[in-house]
Amino acid sequence: MGSSNGNGLVDKYAELIVRVGVNLQEGQALLVNAFVEHAPLARAVARAGYAAGASYVDVRYADDFVKRAMIEHGPDEAIDYSPPWLIERIADNGERSGANVILSGEPEPGLFGDLDGTRVGNARMSAFQTAWLNEVTKRRVSWSIAGCPTEGWARRVFGEPDVERLWKAVAETVRLDEADPVAAWQAHSKRLRERARLLSERGFDALRFRGPGTELTIGLFQGGTWIGGGHDTAWGQEHMANMPTEEVFTSPDPGRTEGTVRSTMPLALLGTVVRGLELRFEGGRVVEARADEGEDVVRTQLDADEGARVLGEVALVDGESRVGRTGITFFNTLYDENATCHIAYGQGFPMCLPDGVEANRSSVHTDFMIGGPEVEVDGIEAGGTAVPILRGNEWQLG
Amino acid sequence: MGSSNGNGLVDKYAELIVRVGVNLQEGQALLVNAFVEHAPLARAVARAGYAAGASYVDVRYADDFVKRAMIEHGPDEAIDYSPPWLIERIADNGERSGANVILSGEPEPGLFGDLDGTRVGNARMSAFQTAWLNEVTKRRVSWSIAGCPTEGWARRVFGEPDVERLWKAVAETVRLDEADPVAAWQAHSKRLRERARLLSERGFDALRFRGPGTELTIGLFQGGTWIGGGHDTAWGQEHMANMPTEEVFTSPDPGRTEGTVRSTMPLALLGTVVRGLELRFEGGRVVEARADEGEDVVRTQLDADEGARVLGEVALVDGESRVGRTGITFFNTLYDENATCHIAYGQGFPMCLPDGVEANRSSVHTDFMIGGPEVEVDGIEAGGTAVPILRGNEWQLG
Repeated sequence: MGSSNGNGLVDKYAELIVRVGVNLQEGQALLVNAFVEHAPLARAVARAGYAAGASYVDVRYADDFVKRAMIEHGPDEAIDYSPPWLIERIADNGERSGANVILSGEPEPGLFGDLDGTRVGNARMSAFQTAWLNEVTKRRVSWSIAGCPTEGWARRVFGEPDVERLWKAVAETVRLDEADPVAAWQAHSKRLRERARLLSERGFDALRFRGPGTELTIGLFQGGTWIGGGHDTAWGQEHMANMPTEEVFTSPDPGRTEGTVRSTMPLALLGTVVRGLELRFEGGRVVEARADEGEDVVRTQLDADEGARVLGEVALVDGESRVGRTGITFFNTLYDENATCHIAYGQGFPMCLPDGVEANRSSVHTDFMIGGPEVEVDGIEAGGTAVPILRGNEWQLG
Repeated sequence: MGSSNGNGLVDKYAELIVRVGVNLQEGQALLVNAFVEHAPLARAVARAGYAAGASYVDVRYADDFVKRAMIEHGPDEAIDYSPPWLIERIADNGERSGANVILSGEPEPGLFGDLDGTRVGNARMSAFQTAWLNEVTKRRVSWSIAGCPTEGWARRVFGEPDVERLWKAVAETVRLDEADPVAAWQAHSKRLRERARLLSERGFDALRFRGPGTELTIGLFQGGTWIGGGHDTAWGQEHMANMPTEEVFTSPDPGRTEGTVRSTMPLALLGTVVRGLELRFEGGRVVEARADEGEDVVRTQLDADEGARVLGEVALVDGESRVGRTGITFFNTLYDENATCHIAYGQGFPMCLPDGVEANRSSVHTDFMIGGPEVEVDGIEAGGTAVPILRGNEWQLG
């Protein structure tokens, strides 16, 4: 199947995804979104889902080779087409307060690398993405994104199809090496929630990132909220939206990002890899964008709509990160964004904003990594005082 | 992927499916239904679809391992559940006069063999099946079912995972060994259409099957229609609903099937194999059913609804069949029903019936094989005269 059994980890991992990731409740419907190459894990999630009392498990397999055929040979109208039944599927699940597991892990590295970058960038089912972001922001679904090792992904990471090694790394990042992974996740979530609470209380006026190629100030709202660890659905079901998760994040003031920023890690984006991304912001908007590789995919995204050039997220991660400590670049945002601090252009998070403030709206939400041992992060108080938050990857704020 | 590349046949086969099977027209949307294990062929069909001018290709992968989890561990309400978006998907395609390729070929032999037969029999998404039969009977879609070899299917057929051998057999049945397969299909379709025209003209009052364990009379409607070879959609697009196809068929008079019939080949049904099936009919309805193996799956189907016990189809196949001539039992109805004569209980075909006559209605349509060298088939004229149609597998009617 292009994906090994991960030394018997699969069933244990699937159970963690179901019990902690979406925290499935008796009688809840479960959607699984996966690639064809994820079939062994998707099947284990289905088994674990029914074992936990799922009313129904529906697995939808996407196929990047079919997508490649579309980008290469399809008509222009096909490129950004969203099949209406895929939107119906998530809307129906939202109405039933369902759960949704999303498996991540690229099937085949560089599969779109030789194709037209603009077409690659546009092939993102934006109507579907908007519908999904609507479900997420309204908290109508308990969802969790988790990685699934594939041979192709292992080749990208290690230069050889060492799937077992990738399984081992993935297992470490999600605490499957702990004696009681569920308890370990509960403690971890509590720690991140505490850190988020503290940042919300401090009410910094802005964050400042300083490092090689980076001199960036990101304005924050008074009364804004930081989030970390488990999320809650509208009806109060805690779930782990990302596994792993090591971040605390908020949505910034759309009009007050100023300065320049350089990415500190490669970014896997729409089947290609973006390296050396540099953005310059004025009045909250990206006014210059360049990259050593993958620049056209980023440019196409930034031109997608009005909100694409505006930050929707800023997130802080320290050196204790389970992902960062593997020392591996995963070429997968789910992991790499949890290795270090990051920002995202595009859609913001309404639940992070004070009452009466609208989140930045976009069909795009692309995280890229800007943190690391050489990057200093400060909180700037309303009076201008700088308070150290991160130094040499160590958390300073007590 | 559990399915080999079939010695480079895949692309040629995919093109045949697209050009002859659904006869895809420029700008037509194409759905592909496949199992996960069919990914290499599904991808080739997507490429061939876009090359032929498809407006969009949507591949939906089903997964029998997920289905197994449902049958084994799911709640009762899940067993016959049809996700509404799957119905929306085919209805949307019908409204757009789209095409639909369905790949057939079991992923894993005996996967449901140890499960409760009633649950296996009920796990058939009957609402979806009814919706699909509605699209088919209204001829709103150009569709084609074609086989896709898998390792599991090869194991079932040959006792070993000899996928290459199965690819060779499949290629023979669909005339890929011809210099010009498209022309060969056109000639073949014409021959079957001619045979169907002749049977329609003769207007037999009944068919009679006589052989070991079989003494069966099937009443036919005056003014009924036989069909063979290519089908036409409501808007006149010819397509090959089955690849291979070797049959001419009609829908019988629901009230006039009498006698007993014994199957002459094993029947692959819902993941199990039915052997030695014997049915007795009175006044058109099955009043006794038994089988050496798989009896409970058949019984559950016969109890599905009012129309399940009534014949919806009778079909004639002679010894020239490309399938029959392979000498292989494929344990797949698409092939085995084209090896020899067969009948189906359940849903009938409105297009075979005279004006004003309703087709038998059921969510079930299960073909099983009743022909062979030892079975004599006669057409019975209104006056009672028997006219030989098949003797020793040879076609008699000129």
